[in-house]
Amino acid sequence: MKITLAQQSNLENIDYDNLPFGVNFTDHMLVCHFENGAWQEPEIRPFGNLNATFALHALHYGQAAFEGMKAYRNQEGEVALFRPERNWERLNKSAERLLMPQVPHEVFIDGLKKLIEIDQAWVPQDEVKSLYIRPYLFSSSEFIAARPSERYTFAIICSPVGPYYAGAVKVKIEDVFTRAASGGIGFTKAAGNYGGAFYPTAKAIEEGYNQVIWTDHANHELIEESGTMNIMLRIGDKMITPPLTDRILAGITRDSIVTLLREWGHDVEERPIKVAEVVEAARNGELKEAFGMGTAAVVSVIQQIGFKGERFDIPTPEDGIASKIRKGLNDIRLGRVEDTHNWMVKVK
Amino acid sequence: MKITLAQQSNLENIDYDNLPFGVNFTDHMLVCHFENGAWQEPEIRPFGNLNATFALHALHYGQAAFEGMKAYRNQEGEVALFRPERNWERLNKSAERLLMPQVPHEVFIDGLKKLIEIDQAWVPQDEVKSLYIRPYLFSSSEFIAARPSERYTFAIICSPVGPYYAGAVKVKIEDVFTRAASGGIGFTKAAGNYGGAFYPTAKAIEEGYNQVIWTDHANHELIEESGTMNIMLRIGDKMITPPLTDRILAGITRDSIVTLLREWGHDVEERPIKVAEVVEAARNGELKEAFGMGTAAVVSVIQQIGFKGERFDIPTPEDGIASKIRKGLNDIRLGRVEDTHNWMVKVK
Repeated sequence: MKITLAQQSNLENIDYDNLPFGVNFTDHMLVCHFENGAWQEPEIRPFGNLNATFALHALHYGQAAFEGMKAYRNQEGEVALFRPERNWERLNKSAERLLMPQVPHEVFIDGLKKLIEIDQAWVPQDEVKSLYIRPYLFSSSEFIAARPSERYTFAIICSPVGPYYAGAVKVKIEDVFTRAASGGIGFTKAAGNYGGAFYPTAKAIEEGYNQVIWTDHANHELIEESGTMNIMLRIGDKMITPPLTDRILAGITRDSIVTLLREWGHDVEERPIKVAEVVEAARNGELKEAFGMGTAAVVSVIQQIGFKGERFDIPTPEDGIASKIRKGLNDIRLGRVEDTHNWMVKVK
Repeated sequence: MKITLAQQSNLENIDYDNLPFGVNFTDHMLVCHFENGAWQEPEIRPFGNLNATFALHALHYGQAAFEGMKAYRNQEGEVALFRPERNWERLNKSAERLLMPQVPHEVFIDGLKKLIEIDQAWVPQDEVKSLYIRPYLFSSSEFIAARPSERYTFAIICSPVGPYYAGAVKVKIEDVFTRAASGGIGFTKAAGNYGGAFYPTAKAIEEGYNQVIWTDHANHELIEESGTMNIMLRIGDKMITPPLTDRILAGITRDSIVTLLREWGHDVEERPIKVAEVVEAARNGELKEAFGMGTAAVVSVIQQIGFKGERFDIPTPEDGIASKIRKGLNDIRLGRVEDTHNWMVKVK
């Protein structure tokens, strides 16, 4: 691994009391190119220029996928990553579906650890702040023809972040627009999945919501995801989340929350959820809680669900499952409880 | 419009007898940024650097769409664009669905005409070669959060090209993977639509085909598009192509071909086509011709269709409709017949 350190750190110019999401970047990044059928030597160097022309393949044909993950500083001051192997595996699943090369373990994981070690001063010790990490892979040949790229670039950039949403959100059950189809790329973190979601989301925002709840591609009858997060519903005494299909992102936060909830004795069902069931439960008061699950927001409490013009307020109990699970994850991340699942991977 | 000319032309280094598609670029490009809610002054400058960092929004979130069009040199030596207004309109439809700003007429059309005027020496006078033009729009803010960009960049780059496909193609009717869903972005030329198509296409290539024929998102029962082209089938004495929906790109070549065929007295049906109907017609010899229609390949003759392991050879008559329509379009583009539709827009 080639390492070129920044001449001067930009850390002292960052206001950690006012951290917009993903706007400030740490001093260094990792870059590794796939050329002539092989991965080249990874390089850690100062954050900066892309060195590309206007023919950059990914800008035209969207062969691009990313990951989102976080580094935390525990109460002993140690810096650790949360389940990084899962992000590596998932990026490679996205890569396969988008016909991009697999990123080797030593490039992703070893490169990541080294990068975070170098920029560890940027990781805050805080209940709601952390270092957001963005590994991503994109096609970097310089031609414009609708065929796969020959060159690819893997990079990791990092941004210190505060909480993603300010508070509880209002969501609209989407019954016109579609995020993903069976046989499509919905299970990947492809760049294109996000670009297609902004317009429907903006329409929902115009109507006074913060996000949409996506429904299935065929009939809009099944609940799929909430914005860029997986969704969990507490109906009666059950916790219910849609099962993983090729239309749904296999969230690592989702998996962690399902694991913890089951460990704590909750009845968690992973099964198809009809929109009609959710609306009925919201109407008759059986829908006790609802929240999104994802890396950026961790747990995003839903306070209102709208469907075809009707709006249903959802309880947001301070001592509810959402709060409990957020605290449970934080306890593990900040080292306040034993990490029985070995989810935290310490950085030197 | 700000214009900075290249110090030296690269034209003499290009081998026009050996032109791979989209690999060589003309001396200049047009670039125009949308910043602080307004389009800035367009600039024509030497082809080159993107001036972006690794936080470039489009690489992460795929807010990006393109157009494909061509400039031709007619027998009088004049350079003309084919239906450029249609590309401008379509880019703005893509932009709307991807929540990007509308590109003004004076930026797209006036900028395009000026750019082609400056690089007109690059437009070949040839039956199968032309200047391929790539207008495109992408999100160019420098942050990583799953929200719309604030800055956007419109650019036009150009590449002299030969024929897209070498000859007649074999296509597989896709019954597992999906290109587009109702309520999705299939009707746009979003970058993400292409990235998701490479893997299914590679699978088809492994099976000895050149491309896939996409089918509908719900049940894979309806014919949609052929690879990156619209599809036309000649069944019996009818010409049949799927109707435009939000899952199908509204091809300008498709529209031009439908217009010419009707003018020539052909019975053209725009209607849903079942896979079963095509397979049956192929089996009993009623499928007389099949071809793709698009800017890059213009007309791409299909010589074989595969479905669930069965392969059907399709006639490719030298004096068939595909040949006739290719010649008809060429006659208009090269000025050999009167341009009764005013499709050609001359460049100074």
